[in-house]
Amino acid sequence: MTFEQELEKRTQEVQETIYGYLPKETGCQKTILEAMNYSMTAGGKRLRPLLMRETYRMLGGEGTLVEPFMAAIEMIHTHSLIHDDLPAMDNDEYRRGRKTTHVVYGEAMAILAGDGLLNLAYETASRGFAMAPGDTRVGSALATLAAKTGVYGMMGGQAVDVESVGEPLDRERLHFIYRLKTGALIEASMMIGAILAGAVGEDILRIGQVAADVGLAFQIQDDILDVTGTQQILGKPINSDEKNHKTTYVTIEGLEKARADVEQISRRAIHTLDGMTGEKEFLRELILSLISRKK
Amino acid sequence: MTFEQELEKRTQEVQETIYGYLPKETGCQKTILEAMNYSMTAGGKRLRPLLMRETYRMLGGEGTLVEPFMAAIEMIHTHSLIHDDLPAMDNDEYRRGRKTTHVVYGEAMAILAGDGLLNLAYETASRGFAMAPGDTRVGSALATLAAKTGVYGMMGGQAVDVESVGEPLDRERLHFIYRLKTGALIEASMMIGAILAGAVGEDILRIGQVAADVGLAFQIQDDILDVTGTQQILGKPINSDEKNHKTTYVTIEGLEKARADVEQISRRAIHTLDGMTGEKEFLRELILSLISRKK
Repeated sequence: MTFEQELEKRTQEVQETIYGYLPKETGCQKTILEAMNYSMTAGGKRLRPLLMRETYRMLGGEGTLVEPFMAAIEMIHTHSLIHDDLPAMDNDEYRRGRKTTHVVYGEAMAILAGDGLLNLAYETASRGFAMAPGDTRVGSALATLAAKTGVYGMMGGQAVDVESVGEPLDRERLHFIYRLKTGALIEASMMIGAILAGAVGEDILRIGQVAADVGLAFQIQDDILDVTGTQQILGKPINSDEKNHKTTYVTIEGLEKARADVEQISRRAIHTLDGMTGEKEFLRELILSLISRKK
Repeated sequence: MTFEQELEKRTQEVQETIYGYLPKETGCQKTILEAMNYSMTAGGKRLRPLLMRETYRMLGGEGTLVEPFMAAIEMIHTHSLIHDDLPAMDNDEYRRGRKTTHVVYGEAMAILAGDGLLNLAYETASRGFAMAPGDTRVGSALATLAAKTGVYGMMGGQAVDVESVGEPLDRERLHFIYRLKTGALIEASMMIGAILAGAVGEDILRIGQVAADVGLAFQIQDDILDVTGTQQILGKPINSDEKNHKTTYVTIEGLEKARADVEQISRRAIHTLDGMTGEKEFLRELILSLISRKK
């Protein structure tokens, strides 16, 4: 099996795991449940739960304890997309080739569906308590999830990003946004995989470093694709950063340096990973594939 | 000391506990932190954390394990107020006598501040894991918090409420909204107090019944005050339900029946409470005081 086939197979498995945790669309509150599932089933790379699962396995994790957390991290990611797309934020009408949630369900329901998914992440992660009663790994994983999602993680990055629209950014502020807005949730993914697998201290920190690099390279590649990609392949409008007068890694460093940095940062991630024990061939190739991705 | 003095003293203590868990307004993400604290320090009855603490004490809870959860429940309540007030929702400009968050900080930052507080609730509750490692009460309390907040709790009620604006409601749907939108978080408050105090099975269920009644009576009294109160005392505009063409308990049952039901439901709550062991004089008086409240 080629890496591409293996990636597709594992992504499909991850997606099936996530689908198993989606709510049934019944009851008086049917509409919000539909709106939540609409965005959760809109496709996407499922990169975060995939990274979580692969890290868990690499470090010897077995069984299903990681599964509710895989669903939870994708719910939080999807929550952030719904709220980012709102008229008061980026005002985007398309995402992953589909109309965005507020276009289909209206603004009020989109705000609530985003809230609902953020909260459902914690409801879902909480299932881990019943799966492993008294096991401190579950509480530690949940605390990591919450810390990396909040104002000192993803949401803090998003807040600074929103405040910076229309004004030029310096390198330092751009790095702050990238580290938090994209990086924090990827750090959470891999660190939670490590924590649930039973890793401690040094190994969790190393995995955090790998993830921080992966997140940064991933975000720079996003900036590159916004300039060089096509709407058809990306499933969303290109040149949106220019349209929104946004400073990006590409506008600061130029396209060639951005490309070189994606490669260099990704290779640094792989180098850190290589210093760890465990079967890491798939994770290595996954990180390499992110360098050359076209969407 | 009169009950009123005792209530003021305990509310003050609860508020100080909550303030101890608010974030410092520093770093690049200073604005969102300010917006979060703006709404958290806007006053209010602190009813939910007060009910949590008093239930915890009544059932023999000691020490500080309940404190992060007291802060968490107030953060979730405040999150819901910020998002309810948004232009896409109720479009309210005043709350607790102050301008609402989106009026002061703009819509994008208000959405993010609401998200930030919802997530901070779980960050804060997660501190319980370090306070009592391996203690299953903390995981159980966090799972209850998440379940009562989400689409099968508060958020589900809010979603149905939003969908019902401008169309007449029947009794059944109105009860669904009240049970979830207001009731669920009050249930969470008292049930978490009970869980953290070490209560099990039957006692947690009974406390849940008391809380459901308190929540229902509280919401009906809100409807009454929207008709009979004044903006000066309430700190928010009156007749907002009529303005928004909302069906309320008062429009369905009439003012006199609504008043009688608040009293009857509250007395039922007290009756259930009286069947339990523990020092419950303060909780009894607190529930009685909610019947005659003017704001």
